[in-house]
Amino acid sequence: MSLVADLETVVGPERVITEPLRLHLYGKDAGLLRGNPTVVVLPESTDEIVGIMHVARRHDLPVVPRGAGTGLASGAIATEPAIMVAATRIRRILDIDPVGRTAWVEPGVVNVDLSRATRPYGLHFAPDPASQTASTIGGNVATGAGGPHCLAEGTTTGHVLAVELVTGDGDVVTLGSEAPDPPGLDLRAVAVGSEGTLGIVTKVLVRLLPNPPAVRTLLAGFDRIEHAASAVGDIIAAGVVPAALEMMDHLMTVAVENFIHADLPTEADGVLIAEVAGHPAAVDADLDVVRRIIEANGATHLRVAADERERATLWKGRKSAFGAITQMAPDYYLQDTAVPRTRLAEVVADVYEIARRHGLAMMNIFHAGDGNLHPLVAFDASEPGRLDTVKQAVDEIVERCVAADGALSGEHGIGLEKRDLMHLVFDDVSLDAQARIKEAFDPEGRCNPGKVLPLDARKPELGSKVPS
Amino acid sequence: MSLVADLETVVGPERVITEPLRLHLYGKDAGLLRGNPTVVVLPESTDEIVGIMHVARRHDLPVVPRGAGTGLASGAIATEPAIMVAATRIRRILDIDPVGRTAWVEPGVVNVDLSRATRPYGLHFAPDPASQTASTIGGNVATGAGGPHCLAEGTTTGHVLAVELVTGDGDVVTLGSEAPDPPGLDLRAVAVGSEGTLGIVTKVLVRLLPNPPAVRTLLAGFDRIEHAASAVGDIIAAGVVPAALEMMDHLMTVAVENFIHADLPTEADGVLIAEVAGHPAAVDADLDVVRRIIEANGATHLRVAADERERATLWKGRKSAFGAITQMAPDYYLQDTAVPRTRLAEVVADVYEIARRHGLAMMNIFHAGDGNLHPLVAFDASEPGRLDTVKQAVDEIVERCVAADGALSGEHGIGLEKRDLMHLVFDDVSLDAQARIKEAFDPEGRCNPGKVLPLDARKPELGSKVPS
Repeated sequence: MSLVADLETVVGPERVITEPLRLHLYGKDAGLLRGNPTVVVLPESTDEIVGIMHVARRHDLPVVPRGAGTGLASGAIATEPAIMVAATRIRRILDIDPVGRTAWVEPGVVNVDLSRATRPYGLHFAPDPASQTASTIGGNVATGAGGPHCLAEGTTTGHVLAVELVTGDGDVVTLGSEAPDPPGLDLRAVAVGSEGTLGIVTKVLVRLLPNPPAVRTLLAGFDRIEHAASAVGDIIAAGVVPAALEMMDHLMTVAVENFIHADLPTEADGVLIAEVAGHPAAVDADLDVVRRIIEANGATHLRVAADERERATLWKGRKSAFGAITQMAPDYYLQDTAVPRTRLAEVVADVYEIARRHGLAMMNIFHAGDGNLHPLVAFDASEPGRLDTVKQAVDEIVERCVAADGALSGEHGIGLEKRDLMHLVFDDVSLDAQARIKEAFDPEGRCNPGKVLPLDARKPELGSKVPS
Repeated sequence: MSLVADLETVVGPERVITEPLRLHLYGKDAGLLRGNPTVVVLPESTDEIVGIMHVARRHDLPVVPRGAGTGLASGAIATEPAIMVAATRIRRILDIDPVGRTAWVEPGVVNVDLSRATRPYGLHFAPDPASQTASTIGGNVATGAGGPHCLAEGTTTGHVLAVELVTGDGDVVTLGSEAPDPPGLDLRAVAVGSEGTLGIVTKVLVRLLPNPPAVRTLLAGFDRIEHAASAVGDIIAAGVVPAALEMMDHLMTVAVENFIHADLPTEADGVLIAEVAGHPAAVDADLDVVRRIIEANGATHLRVAADERERATLWKGRKSAFGAITQMAPDYYLQDTAVPRTRLAEVVADVYEIARRHGLAMMNIFHAGDGNLHPLVAFDASEPGRLDTVKQAVDEIVERCVAADGALSGEHGIGLEKRDLMHLVFDDVSLDAQARIKEAFDPEGRCNPGKVLPLDARKPELGSKVPS
């Protein structure tokens, strides 16, 4: 049977996409590169995904999973003939356990919809990427996507208790469990951030956190962005653990203000959003500490959101930053790196220097408390040579962050775009170990090939050296 | 050269142990089984451990790492001719970064010594197993050993940012990084809980947490242990996240009181220790909530520690439980399982029923907030057939916990004793994936062989099935 007929046997004809125009829409995620899937399938169950995996094996085609396509590293594109498995239709919230504070969800559930569904129980799913109104839990798990509130509540891996996964062989395995600390080697943790290279996640057991009884959000503006960065360090050093600590530079603030009209201090060189959450009395005390530190670092603007509406506006401003950019230039390149937060100020200064040297207008937005940087360049790719300049500058920024003991990626994943930069942070043995883990789940290399791991990651000769 | 001469070349003659009497002391950890290492080596650096690994390869001997020997699952014993690598002498605190809130330590650092060293900075290492005055950070990492305060602060894996590891090939790799969410497959998480089966951990980068400004500790006694368990569920459901929530049954309470004289309510069927921590105002409010819930569940005894001294006594009582037992009977068997905390009350009742059926006097101590059970049987192994009865009862208890969606082990590891029970919670594909991960780090199977993974975990035929 033909590939399409085989897939239609599994999911029915309506959920197999073959029209070139519609396929084109699945050719890109929010990264820079473009692919071209042979066919897109929209499964609705684990069984259907097992069926798709078997079809892929029969036709010897790779399988590329895709959530909402908001990924920024070209991790969800098909660069060779492949079956794309889109999670759009596998999106049920299967079970919410308000006492155990967990929920089983399908991978296509949109991030914000989950916290909306758990609100009646006073609970929420902590990872809150800026894309949360569109991005899926499956995509969040695949990339380890966090968000502002990972500062206090921890990165995504801590909020995923278990995943059900269809391996490259079509086996269904559950990694992790409801128990807090399951035995054996932690396969669950390996799945989080694996970007579909081990198989396709078909269910996720997430941890839910109680909504804090009180929240206060503060906005501050500084004459120099280094002062904002220094305030961040002082706040952390004072022993306060804010619920979130976000930073935007001048150009980003202007772009966001023009887009969202949140009365942001557009004259400031650096803007800080700090949020404290918890018991009302503790929150007021923490807010005082934060306020005093911000004043001591010379803030020129300081305001506490008066009510929930003003607070929501501030956050909408922060989270629409990338939307704001699209109004300024036809293309943008968003980088995602992380450095130890003690080195944030020094790295930020160098990042601006790199941009200046390349003649690029760069904007920056930061999960400052985590040391997570998002340098962003708005540009016009139709100008000759412009894209190459952008890529070069961004690679220099990544190398600068890695040199400051930083990471390649804070939360957006590695995908295709940073794959070859993995050599910067991993030695041969570590890359080989990762490649062997992939082989364990996906011996035929069928699952999202060419993503995350450099093509030469596997070193068969390692492990056979004769000791001297 | 002989094995001993080779090892002496690496570490010098003083740190190679070969006398049978001294070797005998290294034959057991705190588990039930006994082994017999060929030789024990006490390295002081990563380089020496690399050297030892090369000696092991030349002589084709396994390597078994050992911390303080407080493990409860016979994970640190040599059941075949092997080089035991004891961490006693590799125990420097290499670097404390009070601003980044991290510390690099060597594996032999005793748990409590680390928090003592970081106290001047107002920081501590959160995992606090009952064995913390003896057990090492390396052992904590190897087994994923937690403690009472993992309830609020998360299990051990969340407090380990990176490890340096010598693989079975003698390669030195660093898994993880200072960045909050490093890229690629999470090898760091795989190392935590791997019990030396991937290699020997030579350095650990731990996360440090700020000491809470205020702490209140409450002791409650109940006529029926089910009421204590039900209070635990109600406290969690009320949205309070206590810093710790510990439970002891009647017999355990009596044993501890006789040992430590902490004025515990020895008439109670169940005793609860609840601790709240944080901002002073929040702590008082949380304590009120906890107190009201405990009263509503019919507590017959209720007391808040008046000062730090009384608080320390209560905790000393809780943490000396296992010491107390050794006064009562020559042998004890401590089991470590975990269930979703919503099912704690039901499982506790069944655990007692199993003990009754086997005619065993069982004591129970719980990290109740986490659903982590520690059933404990004090007995005399010299009575014929007694040990077999104990083992049978304990296996039934584990199966009962697993049937309640629980885990094999809460925090003490799998070691040798629970290795074959891994089939209860993992299917063939998941065990094979774990075995392949071990192969990636330890292709020759040199590192703590026979521990954690069942001997038939590796299934070479998996991954070559032809799909139907």
